[in-house]
Amino acid sequence: MSLLTVGSVAFDALETPFGKTDKIIGGAATYITLAASYFTKQNNLVAVVGGDFPQEMISLLEEHGVNTEGLEIVKEGKTFFWSGRYHEDMNTRDTLETQLNVMADFNPVIPVSYQGTEYLMLGNTVPATQKLVIERMAKRPKLIMLDTMNLWMNIAMDDLKEVLKLVDLLTINDEEARQLSGEYSLRKAAAKIMEMGPKTLIIKKGEHGALLFQGERIFFAPALPLEEVFDPTGAGDTFAGGLIGYLASTDDISFDNMKRAIIYGSAMASFCVEKFGTERLVNLSQEEIKSRVQEFVNLSSFEIQ
Amino acid sequence: MSLLTVGSVAFDALETPFGKTDKIIGGAATYITLAASYFTKQNNLVAVVGGDFPQEMISLLEEHGVNTEGLEIVKEGKTFFWSGRYHEDMNTRDTLETQLNVMADFNPVIPVSYQGTEYLMLGNTVPATQKLVIERMAKRPKLIMLDTMNLWMNIAMDDLKEVLKLVDLLTINDEEARQLSGEYSLRKAAAKIMEMGPKTLIIKKGEHGALLFQGERIFFAPALPLEEVFDPTGAGDTFAGGLIGYLASTDDISFDNMKRAIIYGSAMASFCVEKFGTERLVNLSQEEIKSRVQEFVNLSSFEIQ
Repeated sequence: MSLLTVGSVAFDALETPFGKTDKIIGGAATYITLAASYFTKQNNLVAVVGGDFPQEMISLLEEHGVNTEGLEIVKEGKTFFWSGRYHEDMNTRDTLETQLNVMADFNPVIPVSYQGTEYLMLGNTVPATQKLVIERMAKRPKLIMLDTMNLWMNIAMDDLKEVLKLVDLLTINDEEARQLSGEYSLRKAAAKIMEMGPKTLIIKKGEHGALLFQGERIFFAPALPLEEVFDPTGAGDTFAGGLIGYLASTDDISFDNMKRAIIYGSAMASFCVEKFGTERLVNLSQEEIKSRVQEFVNLSSFEIQ
Repeated sequence: MSLLTVGSVAFDALETPFGKTDKIIGGAATYITLAASYFTKQNNLVAVVGGDFPQEMISLLEEHGVNTEGLEIVKEGKTFFWSGRYHEDMNTRDTLETQLNVMADFNPVIPVSYQGTEYLMLGNTVPATQKLVIERMAKRPKLIMLDTMNLWMNIAMDDLKEVLKLVDLLTINDEEARQLSGEYSLRKAAAKIMEMGPKTLIIKKGEHGALLFQGERIFFAPALPLEEVFDPTGAGDTFAGGLIGYLASTDDISFDNMKRAIIYGSAMASFCVEKFGTERLVNLSQEEIKSRVQEFVNLSSFEIQ
């Protein structure tokens, strides 16, 4: 089935204990569509970039089967830019600079050819913009998944709560789940958040894995313990992209299939952090993905006698 | 098979956001032997208490099948006492008071009837004392498991490294694994620590579960997401007690059985934190344990198609 991803396509400049990059391609929708490209061939993108965005980066997305008809290019504008520096532990980072540029006026237009897309992925961006996208879909998608962050809880909580009423699946990290719900216990937090709209909730815990909640059901997916985390940028978006790409490709939104989808998302995220930016994501083989998923099986399987 | 646990039997006074206790029974060996009592009936204890330690607490251990022949009572001495206050997040705590008392001169004597015990559990205490216990075993046990903490890495690292050479299985938490190895990546840390002696390593991550390492093999056991953590005191010791109790009862130290043992240990720890101190641990039924283990199966099982 087809997937539509709406979110940022951007430049990032990164510093980690392992080195630093100049401006490289980044943005939530970039990571999401690249990760999803290994699962679904109907991979539609809506985003905005400036005239400074190089054609070869657009071509890179297209080579991975991403439909860029909905990628608006504002010739006189500049592309969204973010730079950050990771701390030694790789779990925390400082934002050095954010230039919203063309994202400040992002008015997502859904091409006619995208209408009827069954799976909608709303990458992390302004909640009001996410809501606009849902309103602009002629037919409600089968599954609407939303990613967000603490920034919007701080400055646009009302808008966020409005859009949450409209989505099926929410992904946030553990600190954000606590902030959104006011509950420290993730189990209590999940119960409260599911009352806000999304029937299914995924709480991401980074190197500690992810929890899937739906009604009374809970599933825990571990993260793969890696020798080295080289650059965590985009890991959450890659996780989301692998997850929704797998759901779209299998067109099965049962709880059991969501469990599988989280494992695939986690496997994709484990690749992402092995290199800077999208480097590792653009050259994966299906065999590598299969073998990585098997590592997750080995990591977490046991039998009670 | 039989189990010998050596460690502290103590008084604790606890403050959590949910309330506070007067002096209640605590200590590593108390939690370990109580947890193990649900698995093995040959449950030998070596510890020391003062004349202030109430007979009804000793009777409580005995009612759970703990053999207290090796529990030394120093009539003129006082029992080891620890008091602490947990922070709001329950993951960090301040020590308010530590009185070593009779533990300061703990000279573990192994009763003749304990000799030949196949499974030896060295609860967290002075590394030189742990080494003394191993030397005092007439025959090397089939499995020696050791628990320790950052304190000994700070003040007795050389002694700790000496005893590590003699043990099969080490349990420490993630921060301690990083301190002991000098590596941030837990996978690299594990490789270094296994070169220090223990062929098998368990890294405890509290609410984030536990990792089992043996050679190139890794297994991850999740922690159960709980509605509420009431009091985390003794959770690590209860985990260790359930684990070694299960290994001793099944007398199988294969990797597959260690995976099961970690799940049983995690299940026991999940009960422990539901009430103050040992309260929840002294009244469990086999049905409750079976049902809790099934929750772990449900939490972590998935099938890749």
